[in-house]
Amino acid sequence: MASTCNPIIHCKAAVSWEAGKPLVIEEVEVAPPQAMEVRIKILFTSLCRSDVHFWEAKGQSTLFPRIFGHEAGGIVESVGEGVTELEPGDHVLPIFTGECKECAQCKSEQSNMCEILKVNKDRGVMIEDGKSRFSIKGKPIYHFLGTSTFSEYTVVHSGCVAKINPSAPLDTVFLLSCGYCTGFGAAVNVAKTPKGSTVAVFGLGGVGLAAVEGARISGASRIIGIDVNPNKFEQAKKFGVTEFVYPKDYDKPVQEVLVEMTNGGVDRSIECTGDVQAMISAFESVREGWGVAVIVGVANKDDLFKTNPFNFLLEKTLKGTLFGNFKPRTDTPLVVEKYMNKEIELEKFITHSVPFSEINTAFDLMLKGEGIRCLIRMEE
Amino acid sequence: MASTCNPIIHCKAAVSWEAGKPLVIEEVEVAPPQAMEVRIKILFTSLCRSDVHFWEAKGQSTLFPRIFGHEAGGIVESVGEGVTELEPGDHVLPIFTGECKECAQCKSEQSNMCEILKVNKDRGVMIEDGKSRFSIKGKPIYHFLGTSTFSEYTVVHSGCVAKINPSAPLDTVFLLSCGYCTGFGAAVNVAKTPKGSTVAVFGLGGVGLAAVEGARISGASRIIGIDVNPNKFEQAKKFGVTEFVYPKDYDKPVQEVLVEMTNGGVDRSIECTGDVQAMISAFESVREGWGVAVIVGVANKDDLFKTNPFNFLLEKTLKGTLFGNFKPRTDTPLVVEKYMNKEIELEKFITHSVPFSEINTAFDLMLKGEGIRCLIRMEE
Repeated sequence: MASTCNPIIHCKAAVSWEAGKPLVIEEVEVAPPQAMEVRIKILFTSLCRSDVHFWEAKGQSTLFPRIFGHEAGGIVESVGEGVTELEPGDHVLPIFTGECKECAQCKSEQSNMCEILKVNKDRGVMIEDGKSRFSIKGKPIYHFLGTSTFSEYTVVHSGCVAKINPSAPLDTVFLLSCGYCTGFGAAVNVAKTPKGSTVAVFGLGGVGLAAVEGARISGASRIIGIDVNPNKFEQAKKFGVTEFVYPKDYDKPVQEVLVEMTNGGVDRSIECTGDVQAMISAFESVREGWGVAVIVGVANKDDLFKTNPFNFLLEKTLKGTLFGNFKPRTDTPLVVEKYMNKEIELEKFITHSVPFSEINTAFDLMLKGEGIRCLIRMEE
Repeated sequence: MASTCNPIIHCKAAVSWEAGKPLVIEEVEVAPPQAMEVRIKILFTSLCRSDVHFWEAKGQSTLFPRIFGHEAGGIVESVGEGVTELEPGDHVLPIFTGECKECAQCKSEQSNMCEILKVNKDRGVMIEDGKSRFSIKGKPIYHFLGTSTFSEYTVVHSGCVAKINPSAPLDTVFLLSCGYCTGFGAAVNVAKTPKGSTVAVFGLGGVGLAAVEGARISGASRIIGIDVNPNKFEQAKKFGVTEFVYPKDYDKPVQEVLVEMTNGGVDRSIECTGDVQAMISAFESVREGWGVAVIVGVANKDDLFKTNPFNFLLEKTLKGTLFGNFKPRTDTPLVVEKYMNKEIELEKFITHSVPFSEINTAFDLMLKGEGIRCLIRMEE
């Protein structure tokens, strides 16, 4: 198939020049997609906790200047050589981790850890040629997670792009490109939350609340939310949290509180904070014999998970997941269909909305712990 | 049912008076079984690594004087009040962890962590009245793991006794009361070793070789044995080990060696050493996406398992098991039947045999890393 590549596009992007400093809307050049890449016109995006972690760059190595953003929806503008499954006009979700469909991991039903395209939080360039597709007056700007959706146009490897039902509202289903699938999949695909079980969810942001949704839809009868922000409970109730634990209310570790509350431990726990102490608490709060803890958050790079190994002998299981074990290209379109069939709700995750020019407001809201997702509209 | 209790029995037991010192054959008094207990005439026993750990008392809290021993077979001599499922003459295996059949854990198909009778390595007395049934001239001698099989007669809670087919040879199937079921179950029940998979087994003692057996019978195509004793390989080949890694042959961590050997990691790893560094290596050597590590060994009480939590996000799973997730009373008799049906082999685990009076030879052999199991014959 012939390439449909157009020349360089000049458009607006929110550039992060320095750790922790407000993004600056700049005019950038976006190069045409190279082999196996697509260029996407982003219509809607939002801020996820991982963007903030790498923007703050505390305990994470990162690169600047960089264009963040990885939760988004858009339309294919052009495709590079060799791309056969996508064409201009397709409605798509760029995804921070990929699926080549050829490697042993992709061929396994159990895995979404593509050997070629799996998430790489340190890489700031395209895998094809080790270069960036973004520049300002010829000076390269780094990519983030292969998606960089805080730009009107971005270039993404075609293996990291899910083609979805064009009748699905992109201003809603864009949520499926990271947070929702990550949390929902952790509860449903990884924890395999049993009906009637007790589930603890650590962290009640967008990912945690999606885990709550997954647990509730799976039939959990008790869902205990844990958050260091005591204001999160009211909002979390609407998603299915039945009890709330504010760790500062207690003078003992939260795992001990949970074990007492549940007379032995929770059946499942899902950690959605990125805080290594929360990971340890999540594991140590599960019940002996069958308890399963699932780690979802991204810890700081030098953090160590520490526990007494006897906890494992008591038949507690610890696992983790990226993107809720969904295969990005194969499964995401099916989750979009779940939304279209009203099996899942997404609107309630979007509590704020701003035009692209006000993207820094989304950062302020997340840092203050207000709301869940702030929709960022690329077209004002 | 009326109690069949006889008076105090005077018999020989191998008493451990002091950490690390040879056992002393003493005449002990064995009190009658109290409610829900049985008194067993031990016919065959052997030494397992856990006996040695607690006898050495390095990094373990322990009690002295104590009667060790927990891998054994015998015949019920008398039963206490309320015991209905066992009677004198029954062929039995005392087991270090129990099954009340009433609690939530026992009622779960997934668990063998009985809330009442699960293993307690620190208790030196009977659960019924907090007292010992052993004494020498009235001075109590502590129990070990509720079994204390280094005695011609012992008292065990009836919930920790598996009644087995009386035609099964006790001098062979006694192995099922600890080491074999622990290792075999870790490979079959917990790791659920897939056909054609690559499995690493850390530690090639009795438990590790039983894990090798389980992996081989499950259809693993590569079984990599790791041991700090380079002489273990020849013997391990007979059980199914196809490759051997001697960590001192390399100047990098063994997990890196395994990841290279397997081009990405093993599908399953089973840790049978009790060494916390081996546990970490076992976990870090499994493949992303679907790798499962199973901890079987008992670490020192202050050890900490440490790993970078990102390893979990790469979809590696870590679990542990006691007694290979077999339910002691329900499942052990079924494993005896597997032996009777020639589905499993046990004889090759017994490499030495001594009369009870020479029990210290079994300690010497294990400390030197010679052989696998040394059968200790109570009747010379």
